Amino acid sequence: MAAQKPTLPKGTRDFGPADVQKRKHILNAIEKVFKKYGFMPLETPTMENLSTLEGKYGEEGDKLLFRILDSGDYLKSLKEHNDKILSDESQDATFAPSVSGKLIDLDSKAATKFISEKGLRYDLTVPFARYVVMHRNEITFPFKRYQMQPVWRADRPQKGRYREFWQCDADVVGVVGSDSLLNELDLIQIYDEAFTKLGIINYEIRINNRKVLAGIAEVVKSIDVMNNIAVAIDKLDKIGEDGVRKELGEQGFSDEELNTLFGIITIKGENKEILNQLKDKLKSSHEGLKGIEELEFILTSNPKPNINLTLDFSLARGLSYYTGCIFEVTSNDGTLKSSIGGGGRYDNLTGIFGLPNVSGVGISFGLDRIYDVMEELKLFPAQLRATSTQVLFCHFDEATLLYCLPALKLLRDAGIAAEVFPDNKKLGKQLDYANALQIPFAAIAGETEMQQQVFTVKNLITGEQQTCTIQTLIGLVGQ
Amino acid sequence: MAAQKPTLPKGTRDFGPADVQKRKHILNAIEKVFKKYGFMPLETPTMENLSTLEGKYGEEGDKLLFRILDSGDYLKSLKEHNDKILSDESQDATFAPSVSGKLIDLDSKAATKFISEKGLRYDLTVPFARYVVMHRNEITFPFKRYQMQPVWRADRPQKGRYREFWQCDADVVGVVGSDSLLNELDLIQIYDEAFTKLGIINYEIRINNRKVLAGIAEVVKSIDVMNNIAVAIDKLDKIGEDGVRKELGEQGFSDEELNTLFGIITIKGENKEILNQLKDKLKSSHEGLKGIEELEFILTSNPKPNINLTLDFSLARGLSYYTGCIFEVTSNDGTLKSSIGGGGRYDNLTGIFGLPNVSGVGISFGLDRIYDVMEELKLFPAQLRATSTQVLFCHFDEATLLYCLPALKLLRDAGIAAEVFPDNKKLGKQLDYANALQIPFAAIAGETEMQQQVFTVKNLITGEQQTCTIQTLIGLVGQ
Repeated sequence: MAAQKPTLPKGTRDFGPADVQKRKHILNAIEKVFKKYGFMPLETPTMENLSTLEGKYGEEGDKLLFRILDSGDYLKSLKEHNDKILSDESQDATFAPSVSGKLIDLDSKAATKFISEKGLRYDLTVPFARYVVMHRNEITFPFKRYQMQPVWRADRPQKGRYREFWQCDADVVGVVGSDSLLNELDLIQIYDEAFTKLGIINYEIRINNRKVLAGIAEVVKSIDVMNNIAVAIDKLDKIGEDGVRKELGEQGFSDEELNTLFGIITIKGENKEILNQLKDKLKSSHEGLKGIEELEFILTSNPKPNINLTLDFSLARGLSYYTGCIFEVTSNDGTLKSSIGGGGRYDNLTGIFGLPNVSGVGISFGLDRIYDVMEELKLFPAQLRATSTQVLFCHFDEATLLYCLPALKLLRDAGIAAEVFPDNKKLGKQLDYANALQIPFAAIAGETEMQQQVFTVKNLITGEQQTCTIQTLIGLVGQ
Repeated sequence: MAAQKPTLPKGTRDFGPADVQKRKHILNAIEKVFKKYGFMPLETPTMENLSTLEGKYGEEGDKLLFRILDSGDYLKSLKEHNDKILSDESQDATFAPSVSGKLIDLDSKAATKFISEKGLRYDLTVPFARYVVMHRNEITFPFKRYQMQPVWRADRPQKGRYREFWQCDADVVGVVGSDSLLNELDLIQIYDEAFTKLGIINYEIRINNRKVLAGIAEVVKSIDVMNNIAVAIDKLDKIGEDGVRKELGEQGFSDEELNTLFGIITIKGENKEILNQLKDKLKSSHEGLKGIEELEFILTSNPKPNINLTLDFSLARGLSYYTGCIFEVTSNDGTLKSSIGGGGRYDNLTGIFGLPNVSGVGISFGLDRIYDVMEELKLFPAQLRATSTQVLFCHFDEATLLYCLPALKLLRDAGIAAEVFPDNKKLGKQLDYANALQIPFAAIAGETEMQQQVFTVKNLITGEQQTCTIQTLIGLVGQ
């Protein structure tokens, strides 16, 4: 077979040793915090039935699903369907060849359901909902689960957007115990602990409440237009105030209504101060005042007052299933403007799968964007190395190589990562290998060392050199 | 939308909290050993181009690939191809509708290349080879990489066989330093350390050498029939000696040749003894003697003589790319007869992608089968719990709940995983939650405790109860 120049699918990436270590550094930090707050791990399969995925992410989301071609003779049922249509003249011949015999009427979208029944996980929320429904009788509620896995979207790749990327979600759900705003407080502290631990100090959690948005809708026009307002102001960053005014104007909002709307969502000032202003403006809306009360509880009960928690009444988060507090996290340092985390409270996670009354609240971390921010801000610890090896044994010939083996075993038995250069190569070549991999120590065995049962140990960072017995070496490295 | 009863795709599984903890227990043990032996992590994307995957796993493997349907109007190029054929009468009209206008000539296999260009990772070796070729100029050789990721095969699900399963691979490759048999020794010790750590004590590493198989072929008939012999005796377990004799007989092997073959591969006894017998039988084969020498080096240099290393000249491992030592690991306890690990030495990993001279040796652990063995043999540590939470704070009303919050924060600040039951429910309900999750301590706050600034701490395993300040509690749990 002719040699091929291999490539990767668009929007996917390899992670070499140094990359994996950095990504694990992030994942471990987040996971440690999740566990400390009582969340338990869940993993779901990469493939889900399309019946589970479709219709959950809107029309745009359905387009972005990666679908798996059925195995075997996958065209069989499409052909059967086609034959059936041909034999039934009354039906629309969607899949029928045109009179010329060409297949021009074959429609990709309509054909899909005949040749594909599985798709790749698009997010972690829908599989979580499916899991809760399938295992409702084994689960102890409130169920606090975390999930850290890749998801796939056939999106146009661009800065901060990949076709395979990782989400790290934590949710509390259940009929019992999940309504408490203490959950929101915990989730905010999880964000703070994780980002602080990672060195992303200058981050900002913007917070709003869907009930406040409902109150705004009520005051502006009527509570029914809450979703129209949410969808429009969600694009404020991209299309600006003029764009939002235009979009809502086309939906029948008057200039006066829009002035009221922007008068509210652009209130500026200290959290406490703007909550008071809002309370006044929404005084006629029961729902709105309930939302303000929730926000007030969170702001006053937050046990870490230095958390950068900013009220933002223009924060909407597009997804219509949110019903209470909503969050979005951005880094104020660096060039990435997209959010590195987000979440909120929802009332009906599992209704679509036939299980009512499962409410909850959750947050998500975007691993790949956090990675990009940390890389740009140089926040990865200098001591993160691609290899874990602490000591490379170097030698000059067969005899000295064999002399290294029992020492190598002793080091490993002591739990120290070590290796021996496996071939007889010049010492320089062996040290090149150690330096390239940033291995901190070389234990060199020549004729003399072998006779004296020692090693010449070189610290490859400082250049210092000393003669050591194997026990001294273990003490030196094990420090 | 009507409620759906959700299901999972065939051969895939969810892993709930307790399962994930068990799987992580295995993965962590293996990873720790990989790192101690100087291997570095690599992760490759879930999707690979089909041009990378196809033709690498034999015809059977190609059938088992999961293929991704192209995005957008994926039928377009199929239709274009069809139109082209229709306008060119001289060509075979593979995709043309029959005269009746039906699509009966549309062939699934032939259509695939027009509608799918990506597939799911089938193993970790081909993506690794692709990575090495694409990054050859950045890699320091010998390159010792490990990779622990899921792979997908559209196989018929059965015991020990899933459609999504995890492999944990470690390989040493390169032009420099990868030829040394020290690598084989390290890999054997990795198997031993990992399985011992996991409690799979009664495991067996069967070992053979492809050069020995070549020598056997030479002695039996001719070195050219090595692959025929390897392919046939690979099925010895399934089809027995009679089946192998029949298969090779049909390929022109005489009874005498088959007697010679079985006289060799069924030699029984101590490793040393059977190597001596083999040496005599293969004395006319230079290649065979080289293989014996390699096996002898490994057996005599193995620094842990208690490793259960068994010579098995009938071990062939079907894949034709092996060229030296080959391994296969099975558990002698439990009912799973399939291998839980395997590997070997190969000469030309990356040739198919245009990079010659990359040789190496590697092993693989099968996570899911190891899990099944450990579950059957009850080898998971009793202290593995689904949650990490050590302390659940319990309360009786709003006031006592709020009293718990600063204490909860102090525990978490001390690095202790803790949570507060987030709603006002009866104490019994709160303790049920703690017991169901096997949380070891409940810190109960009533009116009296609040007044005295203490907690009643109940050890939920022993039932013991004591009154503690928060500092005493931290000391108690942090032990």
